Amino acid sequence: MATVRVAGTGITPFGNAPERTSRDLFAEASAAAFADSDVPPTDVEAVFYGNFMGELSEHQGHQGPLMAEAAGVTAPATRYESACASSGAAIRDAVMRIRNGEHDVVLVGGAERMTNLGTAGATEALAIAADDLWEVRAGMTFPGAYALMAQAYFDRYGGDHEDLAHVAVKNHENALNNEKAQYQKPIDVTDVLEAPPVSTPLGLYDSCPISDGAAALVLTSEEYAEERGLEAPVAITGTGQGGDRMALHDREYLARSPAAREAGDEAYADAGVDAGDVDLAEVHDCFTIAEVLALEALNLANVGEGISAARDGRTTADGETPVNLSGGLKAKGHPVGATGASQVAEITALLEGTHPNSEYVADATTGVAHNAGGTVASAVVHVLEVRE
Amino acid sequence: MATVRVAGTGITPFGNAPERTSRDLFAEASAAAFADSDVPPTDVEAVFYGNFMGELSEHQGHQGPLMAEAAGVTAPATRYESACASSGAAIRDAVMRIRNGEHDVVLVGGAERMTNLGTAGATEALAIAADDLWEVRAGMTFPGAYALMAQAYFDRYGGDHEDLAHVAVKNHENALNNEKAQYQKPIDVTDVLEAPPVSTPLGLYDSCPISDGAAALVLTSEEYAEERGLEAPVAITGTGQGGDRMALHDREYLARSPAAREAGDEAYADAGVDAGDVDLAEVHDCFTIAEVLALEALNLANVGEGISAARDGRTTADGETPVNLSGGLKAKGHPVGATGASQVAEITALLEGTHPNSEYVADATTGVAHNAGGTVASAVVHVLEVRE
Repeated sequence: MATVRVAGTGITPFGNAPERTSRDLFAEASAAAFADSDVPPTDVEAVFYGNFMGELSEHQGHQGPLMAEAAGVTAPATRYESACASSGAAIRDAVMRIRNGEHDVVLVGGAERMTNLGTAGATEALAIAADDLWEVRAGMTFPGAYALMAQAYFDRYGGDHEDLAHVAVKNHENALNNEKAQYQKPIDVTDVLEAPPVSTPLGLYDSCPISDGAAALVLTSEEYAEERGLEAPVAITGTGQGGDRMALHDREYLARSPAAREAGDEAYADAGVDAGDVDLAEVHDCFTIAEVLALEALNLANVGEGISAARDGRTTADGETPVNLSGGLKAKGHPVGATGASQVAEITALLEGTHPNSEYVADATTGVAHNAGGTVASAVVHVLEVRE
Repeated sequence: MATVRVAGTGITPFGNAPERTSRDLFAEASAAAFADSDVPPTDVEAVFYGNFMGELSEHQGHQGPLMAEAAGVTAPATRYESACASSGAAIRDAVMRIRNGEHDVVLVGGAERMTNLGTAGATEALAIAADDLWEVRAGMTFPGAYALMAQAYFDRYGGDHEDLAHVAVKNHENALNNEKAQYQKPIDVTDVLEAPPVSTPLGLYDSCPISDGAAALVLTSEEYAEERGLEAPVAITGTGQGGDRMALHDREYLARSPAAREAGDEAYADAGVDAGDVDLAEVHDCFTIAEVLALEALNLANVGEGISAARDGRTTADGETPVNLSGGLKAKGHPVGATGASQVAEITALLEGTHPNSEYVADATTGVAHNAGGTVASAVVHVLEVRE
């Protein structure tokens, strides 16, 4: 099977940029990806773009062609929407297309404009990732949903808010070196525990921020990379996708993420690796509890043991398997449609040795990116490996 | 290359059903597709779903998992959004996945709930398929955009409103036998010419209606169809996609659709056919002029001659190449996200001999489906062939 190379990556600063449109953000990210790749935009054969709430935040659907144009690309473009896993879904189809020989060069990425809606407006817009009829109209928003998951986890496996606080502390620490992160602010466990509550047991520092931003990837076939003599040592070697019932009340588990387990198992098998081979991970920590559930779903922690991973130092920068060295959604920020592509960009840089936190993973060869939609009714996982 | 079989199809009635959610509509369409296919929902490995305006019409994004659930399927699901070509884009990725051996059985389709927004609300929601910053805010809506295209066509190639009227008359005539069509009402040229103007030169009968509805397809690999002994004589043998600049003012042509030309050329080459092999077509006649531009883009008429095709009887039911035997978007209706899948469903039935209008294409072996997004900034074309 053809291997897919990550030829170039680009990420805008994540944060507050309410005056910038998603096309403006994506133009910046894609220009950076092309500059990094040594691939001309004219070689791109298709564009795969993730966006979640453009209809609500900027009265703009049909963003595929707009983003191709913003990137300076003349090629067919499709928008993928899978809530917070939108650009993960876009990457998956892009990988499939290169593998089956359909394309040699594609542009993949995502963008989201959110802060122009304000906090209440963005929270309401985010809620459309849940079941509008049965959850949203009953008053459920995402902090509430993840709080239910956290409480269910505590009830079944133990642990408490202090354990979760270590996830936030770790991710803020990791973001200190990441100049594109929304927050470069060290916090401690007390800060997390004493922060204003959002939805018990989760507080302000358990929650990712609302962010504007974009990320882009230039992916190529191995043949193209070789012919062009590209420096592209990192390959996407595994892809997996999982699904679950949409509403929490229809799930068998609140304290597990079977869709992410399915996606992870498929991606590992696809790459021919297992969790023991994973040197680093970027996981979808929209809330601190989400990182815990992701670790367990990806077999990076046993069920019931993910809760202590950050506290015990297993997932810290100097731990056995560093998780969210970028700062994660928590501290790097979460411009929804951009997140999945940014995770792959961060892992690529970490494996290539060009990331400010690469020193923590100097001998790493295998990374995994976990992108989740809604309350993990959708999940997409990719495995990246150094292949030079 | 593996051939992709259309194992089953389902379409809801298209029309006014403001009280029905898209999940309700898609549940009906997918149940019909499974019943038609003799494939159990448990065999489905992935769901590819097209929807355009769910965020605005029912405050619901992330519809992929919801629709899998509505269909009784437990499998990963992704929503594709490419404006009015949303389910065309979904079909394209589904075809790619079966071809590369990733899946043997998939569910594909789309739905749209629109009429609950009212005419003005739906018109505003549809406008997000154009460039919000540079077109929509200047007052452009889709009737206006297509009116510009019609006027540009008349100026360059000749023809007039009466020529376009024959397109509407033909499509209304074709819909008389289609019990799921929104309109079963014969009209004549005078009706079209005397109808209230919408945007000169286009009037009420030049415009497709606002519609609720869903369509679904069960697609399988050839191997699966053979092993299961399915009756599935029709195969999707060609797929193509094209893109163009989003805003009309950035285009080289107003009176041509290069994205559709690109998609059509690719789909024909992919199937190993040419326009001369095409026995029937379903094209995206959101406005009468759109059918004319589609015929020319697909090489079913020479440039400048598409305008007279309906008037001269070349595309009527008893003509050389019947176009929109279903009634087209014009008379069948246009629930945006459902349209692309419904076109493939109609062609399948026409080729299988199970459509009420099959008598007009008794010896047909090759059909083409043309699904366009916005002012054809996106286009997806599929070729279907009888392969038993």
